[in-house]
Amino acid sequence: MKKILNDPFKYVDEMLDGLCSAHPEIYRQTGEGGKVIVRASGISDGKVGIVTGGGSGHLPVFTGYVGKGLLDACAIGAVFASPSVEQMADAMRAANGGGGVLRLYGNYGGDVMNFDMAGEMLEMEDIPSTTVLLADDVASAPKEEREKRRGVAGMVYAFKTAGAAAEQLKNLEDVTRIAQKTADACHSVGAALTSCTIPQAGKPTFEISEEDMEMGMGIHGEPGVWRGKLRTADEIANEMVDMLLADINPNSGSRMSVMVNSLGATPLEELYILYRIVKKRLEDVKVKIVMPLVGRYATSMEMTGVSFTFCELDSELESLLMEPAHCAFWSV
Amino acid sequence: MKKILNDPFKYVDEMLDGLCSAHPEIYRQTGEGGKVIVRASGISDGKVGIVTGGGSGHLPVFTGYVGKGLLDACAIGAVFASPSVEQMADAMRAANGGGGVLRLYGNYGGDVMNFDMAGEMLEMEDIPSTTVLLADDVASAPKEEREKRRGVAGMVYAFKTAGAAAEQLKNLEDVTRIAQKTADACHSVGAALTSCTIPQAGKPTFEISEEDMEMGMGIHGEPGVWRGKLRTADEIANEMVDMLLADINPNSGSRMSVMVNSLGATPLEELYILYRIVKKRLEDVKVKIVMPLVGRYATSMEMTGVSFTFCELDSELESLLMEPAHCAFWSV
Repeated sequence: MKKILNDPFKYVDEMLDGLCSAHPEIYRQTGEGGKVIVRASGISDGKVGIVTGGGSGHLPVFTGYVGKGLLDACAIGAVFASPSVEQMADAMRAANGGGGVLRLYGNYGGDVMNFDMAGEMLEMEDIPSTTVLLADDVASAPKEEREKRRGVAGMVYAFKTAGAAAEQLKNLEDVTRIAQKTADACHSVGAALTSCTIPQAGKPTFEISEEDMEMGMGIHGEPGVWRGKLRTADEIANEMVDMLLADINPNSGSRMSVMVNSLGATPLEELYILYRIVKKRLEDVKVKIVMPLVGRYATSMEMTGVSFTFCELDSELESLLMEPAHCAFWSV
Repeated sequence: MKKILNDPFKYVDEMLDGLCSAHPEIYRQTGEGGKVIVRASGISDGKVGIVTGGGSGHLPVFTGYVGKGLLDACAIGAVFASPSVEQMADAMRAANGGGGVLRLYGNYGGDVMNFDMAGEMLEMEDIPSTTVLLADDVASAPKEEREKRRGVAGMVYAFKTAGAAAEQLKNLEDVTRIAQKTADACHSVGAALTSCTIPQAGKPTFEISEEDMEMGMGIHGEPGVWRGKLRTADEIANEMVDMLLADINPNSGSRMSVMVNSLGATPLEELYILYRIVKKRLEDVKVKIVMPLVGRYATSMEMTGVSFTFCELDSELESLLMEPAHCAFWSV
């Protein structure tokens, strides 16, 4: 895996410098070492602040989604590593406009531990905060143990709906309820064909033969449900849809947004080939697709592979999903 | 290079089926075999129609840029292959709203030959048309032989400005003049680290060792200016900026849009690392960057590599660049 790099230890600093200098009207660096990204426009008085955080290497996740109708601040760790407690606390302080702060992020041990501690620090500063965790990866634990699942691309939907609710000046309780409803509504699964390379490691995170793929693999290379010979696009898409429908069991007539997401290297052409099957299968069970998202919404740098996310919509979530939003990578 | 495919001979059909079913409000298939994509909303009476065309495998180029404030129709060939004369004529007929048709595409022999013949067919049907060719790849021929240069990502700027002019109901002569001015204003260079694989070929288009890169390589693997050991991000960016500035020799105080484009697999993180240097170097020569575009605007499927495009702006082009536009991959 070939990368265009300078000093691997400056990877995150240089990336953030480039991001913020390309889009100064959207992103601004703050906090220790500039590792907290906030909205350039600041936070409006009384608005609930929404913060996220996590490791680098997943653009547009996490920090790309700071923007109007989306997030207020993001704490940024090294590649695939949790931000520090202090960074997370700084992000929460920056997102405090007097309406309280929602911590909205993926279910990973290090992130949860640090964000919980940051929340306790903020409590001592009289800034109320709540937590909603994304745990949408159906391949990472059975349905009965949903709380053990990892958070993946479903977080994009939660950023969007909670962000829209906060923009409407709903209170912390309501924004938290909407984020939790969206987190509960999201179901994802991924399949990887190649690894990516963490710059500081300098070699692929895992080995996989030129003939094989891994179904259900996590975005950091966490083990999936099977590894075997690369299948056809239609076989892969059908199996991924099977896993999601088994988890959701949608009612006829229900509405969903679906995301067909590249993990990095997989091109748009292949995503659209996969989308045909998603559409057909949901039509077969009488589910109406609303706002399909086909592209790169949550990646692992140059990993080859895809993920599907299905987000079940009720009228409240659908309406929030359609509200205007803008960051460097997504405009609604 | 691993790909998620079905029958390679159905690659383009399945991709177009997925694209149009995901975004039916933007794209509609027409013509023989559905290989012409037109705006779902049709063409307004009297508006100049803008058509492009070329091989598949470059999404969002070409067909992704059909949309409001952009293109009206696109003729689509097999991967890296020219569309047929009949497809190009169909695209022009579909884009005929009574105001004439501009053919706006990249300078490749097969495309030029077929589009010229299609233009002659349309002349017999009393549909006036003009041609503007993008020839922006500075590594493909010296400045004195600009007409021999290949067309690459600069076409995105020409789609945008000509599309905005046509939307304002400017006449064919004026839209053509604006497209030509934009084509003249665009200068691009690319660097490739890996090949991509044409589905029907089933193996990489060219070989390159795990240690090497090729500076100035074309988007189909056309030979570049040197091949050698992979350099650092800053070295690569500086050399690419050197080549572009030598070609442009910009005046102090001038304004440019710059595109830092992934050829496919290269992730956003690396694009932003490269962007730092582009910004610094243009500041050094007192050029103001307007609307930097960092992302995947013109790709070669899963090729690893980048291209830079500098588009010199006068007030007319800058104003057209800022006009609203919308397709599935870009909103202004």
